[in-house]
Amino acid sequence: MTDLHVYDTTLRDGAQQEGLNLSVSDKLAIAAHLDELGVGYIEGGWPGANPKDTEFFARAQHELRLQNATLAAFGATRRVGGNAADDPLVRALVDSGASVVTLVAKSHAGHVERALRTTLAENLEMIRDTVSFLRGEGRRVFLDAEHFFDGYAVDRAYALEAVRAAVEAGAEVVALCDTNGGMLPNQVADVVADVLDATSARLGIHCHNDTGCAVANSMAAVDAGATHVQGTVNGYGERTGNADLLTVVSNLQIKRGLALVEEPRLREATRIAHSISEITNVPPYSRQPYVGASAFAHKAGLHASAIKVDPDLYQHTDPTLVGNDMRMLVSDMAGRASIELKGRELGFDLAGDTELLTRVLTKVKDLELRGYTFDAADASFELLLRREVVGEAAHEYFEVESWRVITDARGDENALSEATVKVVAGGERVVATGEGNGPVNALDHALRQALSPAYPELDKLELIDFRVRILDAAHGTDAVTRVLIETSDGSTSWETVGVAGNIIEASWQALVDGVTYGLVRAGVPVR
Amino acid sequence: MTDLHVYDTTLRDGAQQEGLNLSVSDKLAIAAHLDELGVGYIEGGWPGANPKDTEFFARAQHELRLQNATLAAFGATRRVGGNAADDPLVRALVDSGASVVTLVAKSHAGHVERALRTTLAENLEMIRDTVSFLRGEGRRVFLDAEHFFDGYAVDRAYALEAVRAAVEAGAEVVALCDTNGGMLPNQVADVVADVLDATSARLGIHCHNDTGCAVANSMAAVDAGATHVQGTVNGYGERTGNADLLTVVSNLQIKRGLALVEEPRLREATRIAHSISEITNVPPYSRQPYVGASAFAHKAGLHASAIKVDPDLYQHTDPTLVGNDMRMLVSDMAGRASIELKGRELGFDLAGDTELLTRVLTKVKDLELRGYTFDAADASFELLLRREVVGEAAHEYFEVESWRVITDARGDENALSEATVKVVAGGERVVATGEGNGPVNALDHALRQALSPAYPELDKLELIDFRVRILDAAHGTDAVTRVLIETSDGSTSWETVGVAGNIIEASWQALVDGVTYGLVRAGVPVR
Repeated sequence: MTDLHVYDTTLRDGAQQEGLNLSVSDKLAIAAHLDELGVGYIEGGWPGANPKDTEFFARAQHELRLQNATLAAFGATRRVGGNAADDPLVRALVDSGASVVTLVAKSHAGHVERALRTTLAENLEMIRDTVSFLRGEGRRVFLDAEHFFDGYAVDRAYALEAVRAAVEAGAEVVALCDTNGGMLPNQVADVVADVLDATSARLGIHCHNDTGCAVANSMAAVDAGATHVQGTVNGYGERTGNADLLTVVSNLQIKRGLALVEEPRLREATRIAHSISEITNVPPYSRQPYVGASAFAHKAGLHASAIKVDPDLYQHTDPTLVGNDMRMLVSDMAGRASIELKGRELGFDLAGDTELLTRVLTKVKDLELRGYTFDAADASFELLLRREVVGEAAHEYFEVESWRVITDARGDENALSEATVKVVAGGERVVATGEGNGPVNALDHALRQALSPAYPELDKLELIDFRVRILDAAHGTDAVTRVLIETSDGSTSWETVGVAGNIIEASWQALVDGVTYGLVRAGVPVR
Repeated sequence: MTDLHVYDTTLRDGAQQEGLNLSVSDKLAIAAHLDELGVGYIEGGWPGANPKDTEFFARAQHELRLQNATLAAFGATRRVGGNAADDPLVRALVDSGASVVTLVAKSHAGHVERALRTTLAENLEMIRDTVSFLRGEGRRVFLDAEHFFDGYAVDRAYALEAVRAAVEAGAEVVALCDTNGGMLPNQVADVVADVLDATSARLGIHCHNDTGCAVANSMAAVDAGATHVQGTVNGYGERTGNADLLTVVSNLQIKRGLALVEEPRLREATRIAHSISEITNVPPYSRQPYVGASAFAHKAGLHASAIKVDPDLYQHTDPTLVGNDMRMLVSDMAGRASIELKGRELGFDLAGDTELLTRVLTKVKDLELRGYTFDAADASFELLLRREVVGEAAHEYFEVESWRVITDARGDENALSEATVKVVAGGERVVATGEGNGPVNALDHALRQALSPAYPELDKLELIDFRVRILDAAHGTDAVTRVLIETSDGSTSWETVGVAGNIIEASWQALVDGVTYGLVRAGVPVR
């Protein structure tokens, strides 16, 4: 759209956040969301430096179908005294298959001498050598100038030398990094303007939020002429986090009129932010600008009637531009229109049926207030909708009489779980027992064994993912627990949700929905 | 110290935050903390508009012993068509006993006409009348010009008229409010400079964080000449919150060298921020600038050796200035240097002991490969380190013979969990049973009941958070589960970790570590 790069580093610098630990599958799933959001570049990790990131790039080549974004591999300049062509870590960047390589390099004289422990000249040579080599291998090269602003304050001439070395060797962008995060907007603006003046570099900006100014610093850099902005979704990152790319992009696009991502994509920002937080298992921050659950929530009272008449008097922008909602706290769902749309997807024409749409919407809002989430549990939503449209009976495959699960361990032995399930299915009462290395596993085995005589179709189902979120941290295990379960039939998979005070009960609800949906999907009649 | 007002509105505008509900006692306790922090003004609420706030001001006169701060009462200009002397709400401001009254007034022509539904002239008269009356009653008057920036954009002349009306009637400060929070720093700077130019007002600034720029906007206003800054502790407030006063003050004092609060008081900022979050019951935000738990936490093993030599290379300021502390996160990127640093934090000098450091590192890496994470579980790491340094015996408070937990439900009833734990503690074998609305809750109750005879110190512990992560999604409930548990003794809290194929077993490990750490921390001997 514009030539301003939107460069996401959630998977690399964002993953430095305390308590955040991403598997390769998590990273692939997040990358798909980032692509959907419309970012230009996705920094996937540091191939060669750790086996997980090497695997990510290998799998990305086959498993990621990027529509918009270009994958970037992150790595460092070659080692002191070596040469780039023989450096195994530099080689790993080429082998990653990424067309863009982002090299981190030192530009702070003190860091070169005290942390890298080499000469200022050798550091410049490392930059030149590594950039040239990667250019020769046909890669586009971006350079992250680490600790740039602190370095500039200490030794401006050297910091500029590092930028020039990169540009002369063929780097396309030099991103100035406020690695320690201590800058304020006016400082960033001054330095960016000076570097643009003193070099021929295309500049980028990489900010951390240690002064609470990561967003403002990024904006200040763009105002001063930077044309490449780095950040992370939800502001994940070490210490106070990185600049929140969602806020930066929303500000630039909505407040400044720059066209960074296609408008319909920005309208997915709220949903994508929440989906990514489901993957990272970092609870969403309700006060997050633009996409937070409270971002457009108003306490009822003083202004309520005025808001209804004239919402623009009380909100700084139209929340639907980022897929948020003035009544966001009530529900994550967009409203009747999306329910109608979903119905059409399932083959129901609900267009005229305002009463049914309202009934479903009320039910969804009520359940979401109690902790359910249907964004991530399509199958549970479809069951809810079918029950309203077609009626309960068509989906009552079985009746649950009771269930029980016991987990025990002696001394240092591994714990074992055993579940007993009593159901009525196909006209027969069945009592079945299942074992497992966890209580949910045991319940799953017992349930499917109990249903197997009436519904042999269930034998091929498999429970493939299980996620847990405690919804009110203030009360510890007394809080409400939400469980999401993914079930597969070998060719596709679906997600279901359960919510209860008891984690096992929430899991049971999600299991029952998962099995029921499997039968609906396969077109099995109630027996 | 300086003549820049630090004006806190946690108790009034901060309390607008979704889910935040403060009793009068809560407000008094928070006010005492704010005074200790050294703010100049504490806005206590809106006396007359709600009985809770009236009571707050009444009790404050006897129960609050303010050392530094002046209490301010918040209220609105008199009603349309009346006069201030007869307005009961204006009278309530006088009766509150506060020496400062902060009046909110409209300065946005559209709001005057469409929300207040009166004429532009009458609104100016309401400002003049109310300010004059309160000045006549001997009160200092500050004026909050609501929606000022939006109003200035629509009708600059009228916005300036409102400021002039307040000043001419005797208002000491006019705080320009970005009520909807949509401004960016350059806009704020331009408007503040223009208003200073066009009026004789002393200006203040009141920002919300809807563009992620509340702190930067406040700083921009001060740079442009505002000498009164409003904000809330921890950035509490409606929607995305208000400017975080702790960040603004820290930036202005540490980065800009302004003396806003006495230095020893700023060193209490981290403790005070956390104490206030205990009162509000809003979980602290670990990524909060300056005072957040992660604000000075470093994960990358890469940097640990350099940090040891030269911490200033890797932090933007000295964390002790705000009472925070640099923390090394032990993670799969850890090296010996970070373990040595962590040991030093815990009071062990491991500098020369390469063999022990290597042994601990090997153990950490092995456990992290199996799914443990120590960056989020400091207490489990400390126990691991203590066992290596001090020996196993010093921490063997009890021996577990066996445990068992049963969860069951009939039909649609809620599930219940019951646990039985058999331990040997204080030379006695104890069998105890606990119930809970979840299996972990039940185990926690049973374990602490079993240990209570030998270790009554455990009675005050409470399980306050519980997080679950499935580590290898590819195998569903057959995968390894990691549980993080946070335990509190009422004044501090700590995190422990457990990993197992069985979610209940992982929870049990974390529970046992949480209880053991509680005993170590309290200096309890093995009995």
